[in-house]
Amino acid sequence: MNARLRSVEPRTTNPRHLLGIEELDRTQIEAILSRAREFQRLLRDGRRQTTLAGKVVANLFFEDSTRTKSSFEVAAKALGAEVLSWIPTGSSVSKGETLLDTVRTVEAIGVSVIVIRHSSSGVPHLLSRHVRCSIINAGDGVHEHPSQALLDAFTLLEHLGTLQGQRILILGDILHSRVARSNIHCLGKLGVEVLVGGPPTLIPTGIESLGCRYVADFRSVLESVDAVMMLRIQRERLTDAAVPSLREYAIHWGFDVAAAARVREGAVILHPGPINRGVEVSYEVADSPRSAILEQVSNGLAVRMAILEMVA
Amino acid sequence: MNARLRSVEPRTTNPRHLLGIEELDRTQIEAILSRAREFQRLLRDGRRQTTLAGKVVANLFFEDSTRTKSSFEVAAKALGAEVLSWIPTGSSVSKGETLLDTVRTVEAIGVSVIVIRHSSSGVPHLLSRHVRCSIINAGDGVHEHPSQALLDAFTLLEHLGTLQGQRILILGDILHSRVARSNIHCLGKLGVEVLVGGPPTLIPTGIESLGCRYVADFRSVLESVDAVMMLRIQRERLTDAAVPSLREYAIHWGFDVAAAARVREGAVILHPGPINRGVEVSYEVADSPRSAILEQVSNGLAVRMAILEMVA
Amino acid sequence: MNARLRSVEPRTTNPRHLLGIEELDRTQIEAILSRAREFQRLLRDGRRQTTLAGKVVANLFFEDSTRTKSSFEVAAKALGAEVLSWIPTGSSVSKGETLLDTVRTVEAIGVSVIVIRHSSSGVPHLLSRHVRCSIINAGDGVHEHPSQALLDAFTLLEHLGTLQGQRILILGDILHSRVARSNIHCLGKLGVEVLVGGPPTLIPTGIESLGCRYVADFRSVLESVDAVMMLRIQRERLTDAAVPSLREYAIHWGFDVAAAARVREGAVILHPGPINRGVEVSYEVADSPRSAILEQVSNGLAVRMAILEMVA
Repeated sequence: MNARLRSVEPRTTNPRHLLGIEELDRTQIEAILSRAREFQRLLRDGRRQTTLAGKVVANLFFEDSTRTKSSFEVAAKALGAEVLSWIPTGSSVSKGETLLDTVRTVEAIGVSVIVIRHSSSGVPHLLSRHVRCSIINAGDGVHEHPSQALLDAFTLLEHLGTLQGQRILILGDILHSRVARSNIHCLGKLGVEVLVGGPPTLIPTGIESLGCRYVADFRSVLESVDAVMMLRIQRERLTDAAVPSLREYAIHWGFDVAAAARVREGAVILHPGPINRGVEVSYEVADSPRSAILEQVSNGLAVRMAILEMVA
Repeated sequence: MNARLRSVEPRTTNPRHLLGIEELDRTQIEAILSRAREFQRLLRDGRRQTTLAGKVVANLFFEDSTRTKSSFEVAAKALGAEVLSWIPTGSSVSKGETLLDTVRTVEAIGVSVIVIRHSSSGVPHLLSRHVRCSIINAGDGVHEHPSQALLDAFTLLEHLGTLQGQRILILGDILHSRVARSNIHCLGKLGVEVLVGGPPTLIPTGIESLGCRYVADFRSVLESVDAVMMLRIQRERLTDAAVPSLREYAIHWGFDVAAAARVREGAVILHPGPINRGVEVSYEVADSPRSAILEQVSNGLAVRMAILEMVA
Repeated sequence: MNARLRSVEPRTTNPRHLLGIEELDRTQIEAILSRAREFQRLLRDGRRQTTLAGKVVANLFFEDSTRTKSSFEVAAKALGAEVLSWIPTGSSVSKGETLLDTVRTVEAIGVSVIVIRHSSSGVPHLLSRHVRCSIINAGDGVHEHPSQALLDAFTLLEHLGTLQGQRILILGDILHSRVARSNIHCLGKLGVEVLVGGPPTLIPTGIESLGCRYVADFRSVLESVDAVMMLRIQRERLTDAAVPSLREYAIHWGFDVAAAARVREGAVILHPGPINRGVEVSYEVADSPRSAILEQVSNGLAVRMAILEMVA
C-alpha cells in the first residue's frame, strides 16, 4: 500500500458516492486504505473525530443485516455524525411509496449520506443519479458490496504487508456473492492474482472476464496461495438445486483442518460472516490463529470511517 | 408572518404540550413559524444548537410512521437532545400494561418530551393531564396532526409571502384525515379562506363548522386558488366502500396535468406524503416545479425544532 | 448505606462484568448504590457526564423488553457513550450464526460493553469467559436480573434510610422470577430479613437455602414488614396449571387495599413492572402514595449509570 497518507482535507476529486469497486481506480482504493490505517491509529489513541459533526447518516437496509449496518452506525458516530435507522418494514415503503420517493424523502429530512442495502442489483447507482446527498452501497443484489471488499483488502494488507503479486483463493458460492464480485475487482486492481473455487453450479459462466481464474480442484492450489477467502453458503440457495445439501457441501467444498494444513504458514483465512460453522468452514479452522474473521469485522470500523469521510 | 422574531429565551407563557392546532392562538402559531425560520437560517449556516442538551426525547409511535418519526428524531438531535425510540411491538404494551402506565414509565426512565402517535383520537390530551413531561401529538386517530399543519403553513408562507386573504383548496379524503383537520384550523387562524373538495362519501357532515367551505366540483375553483393541498388516499379505506377503486378515484379526484394547468402561476401544490403516484396525484404533477412536496419534508426539520424548543 | 462515597477514579478491583448479585459482595453492592446516589445528585444539578465518551454500549436483548433496555440506553448516553441497538430478529442470529459468534462480532464492531438479556440462564456467564469487553446481565432466564435488584435496594434505602435489620416480603411467582432471585441475594447481603410468599406451586423447593423464609399465609406477616415487593404474574405461566386463573390469583394473592391497610405507615410497595393492574396489585394500591413503582423506574437511571461506570 502506498505509504503516503491522504491529506485530511477533502479533495475535490473525491467521489461523492461509493457505488462499487468497479468505479474506483487503484489510487482511490489505496487512499481509502491509507486513511483507514490512520483512523485505526487515532482510534487506538482514543482521539475523537468530528469530521461529520452536525451531519446525519441514514442506514436504509431493505435486506436483513446487523453486521454491516452496525459497523456503519458505529463508524458514523465515531466521526461525530448522527445516525438515522430507517426501518423499511411498516414504513412508507409498505404504504406503496416508490423507492425513489422514499429516498428523496430521507434526504429531505436532513440526511447527508445514505447507506443502502437492497436486494436489486443497481439500485444505488440508480438512486445516485436522482439525489444530491451521497450514496454508499452496502450491498446490492448479487452485484457489489464495496465496503466489505475494502475491509478485506485492509485485513490482507495488515497480514501480508503488500498485495502486489500475491495469490488469493476465493472459495464458495461465487454466483450469488456480491462479496466475491467486489473482491475480484478490488484485489485485481491492487495487483493480486485471484483464483476462484467452488461447486461448478455456483460459478458464473465467463467469470474469467472479471480478471480471475477458476480452479476446478481447489485443493490442488492450496500450497501456493497467500490467503483463502471463504464465502457464506446461504441456506436458501439449497432450494434451487445448486447444492444438494449442506452436508454434501461441507464434505466437498468445506474448508477444514486437512485443507488448512496444506496452506503455507503466514497465509490468512477470511470469511465475510456470518459463518456457518461445520459447513463452509470447520469449527477448528474458524477459531485457528490463522483465521482473521474477527479482525475483518474490527477493521470494518476504520475502513467505513474512511469511506464516510470520503463521500461526505 | 410577523417579522418580529420570538426571543431565544423560553417564555413562561409557552405551552408545555403541543396537542393540536385547535389549542393554539394565532400569536403562538406565528411564534413557531417565526422561530422555525430562524432555525432554518442557523441550519444553513451550520450553526449547532444545544437547547435540549442533556434532555431525552422519546418517540412513541403506536402507528407505523417513518417520515414524521425520523423528522422529529433529526430535529431533536439537531437541538442536542438524545432520542429514545420506543417500539411498542413486543414491549410492555403487548404484556398487558395500560397505555398510561407505559407513558408514565417512559417519563420515569428520564424522558422530558414524548412525541406520540396513536390510532385513538384524544390520546395525547388524556396523557397530558397525567404526566409532568411534555407531550407532542404526532397524529391521533382522525383528530389532529399539528406539526404537519405547521410545516404546511411554513411552506405556504415561503412561497406566498403571506397567508392572510389567500384561498387554499384541500382535496381528498377529508373524513379520515387528521392532516386536513389540523390544516383547516391552522390556515383558518392565519386568515386563509379554506375550501375542501373530494368524494362526498369522504367529506364529514358539518365540515363547515370548522370554518371551511365544501366545493362539490373542485375543478370549478382551480383558477382562483393560491395552493392545492392533496391528501393521501389510504388503501384500507377502499374496503369500506367509500371509494369504489383507486382507478375511479384517480379519474374523478386525482390531481393531474389538466387540473394543474388551470391553477395560476405561482400557486403551490402540497401533499403530506407518502404519495400514491397515479392515484391522488399524477406523476407529472408530483415532479412539476410547482410541487413543494419535498420542501414540506425539508421544512419539517426547522418547524419541529421550533416545536420541541417551545415545549421543552 | 455507607455514607462515604466511592472515589470517582475507577478502582482496579472493580468487577469487569455484572453477571449477578451472587458474585458481588456487600462492599461492591454498597459502592454501586453510593455512586448511584452521587449520579442522582449530578443529574438533578444538570451536570453532564463524559465518563464513557467515545465508547459504544450495545443492547443485545434476545427477549422482549423496553423498560430495562431503554433505561440502559438513557444511562449510557447520560455518561456520553454511543448506544448500539442490536435487534436479534432478522439479524445474523436468524441466519444460523452461533450466539458466541454473534457476541464476538458485536465486540469486534467496536463495542466496549454488552448489555444482554437472554431466555437461557447462565448465558452472560458463559459469554463473559470468551470476550474481552464487559458483559452486563440484563436478565438471564429464571436466574438473575441484577440491575433490577440494585435499583430496588436503592429505592428501599431512599425510603427506609437503612436496610440492616429490615423485614421485606417478596410476593408472587418466586419460581419463575429472576427479579426475586437477585433481590433475595441482594437484600440478604445488605442485612435484610427476606420473607417470600405466593402460591405453593410457584415457590421453588429449597428456597430457604438462598437465605429467605417462606410464609404460607402472607397476610399474617403484613403488620411486621417494612416493604412489600410484588412480582409480575406472567400470563404464559397460566397455561402450565401453576395458577388456575388470573382472577383466582387476584383473589388469593393479589395485593389489594385490604392487604395494604395492614402494612405499617412508612412501609414501601414495590413492583418491577410492567404491572398487571387488578391481578397481582389492585388499581388503588398501585396508585397509592406508598407505591414506589415509578420511583423504581426513575432510580434505574442513576443505578445503571453506576453499573456502566463500574464495568467500563
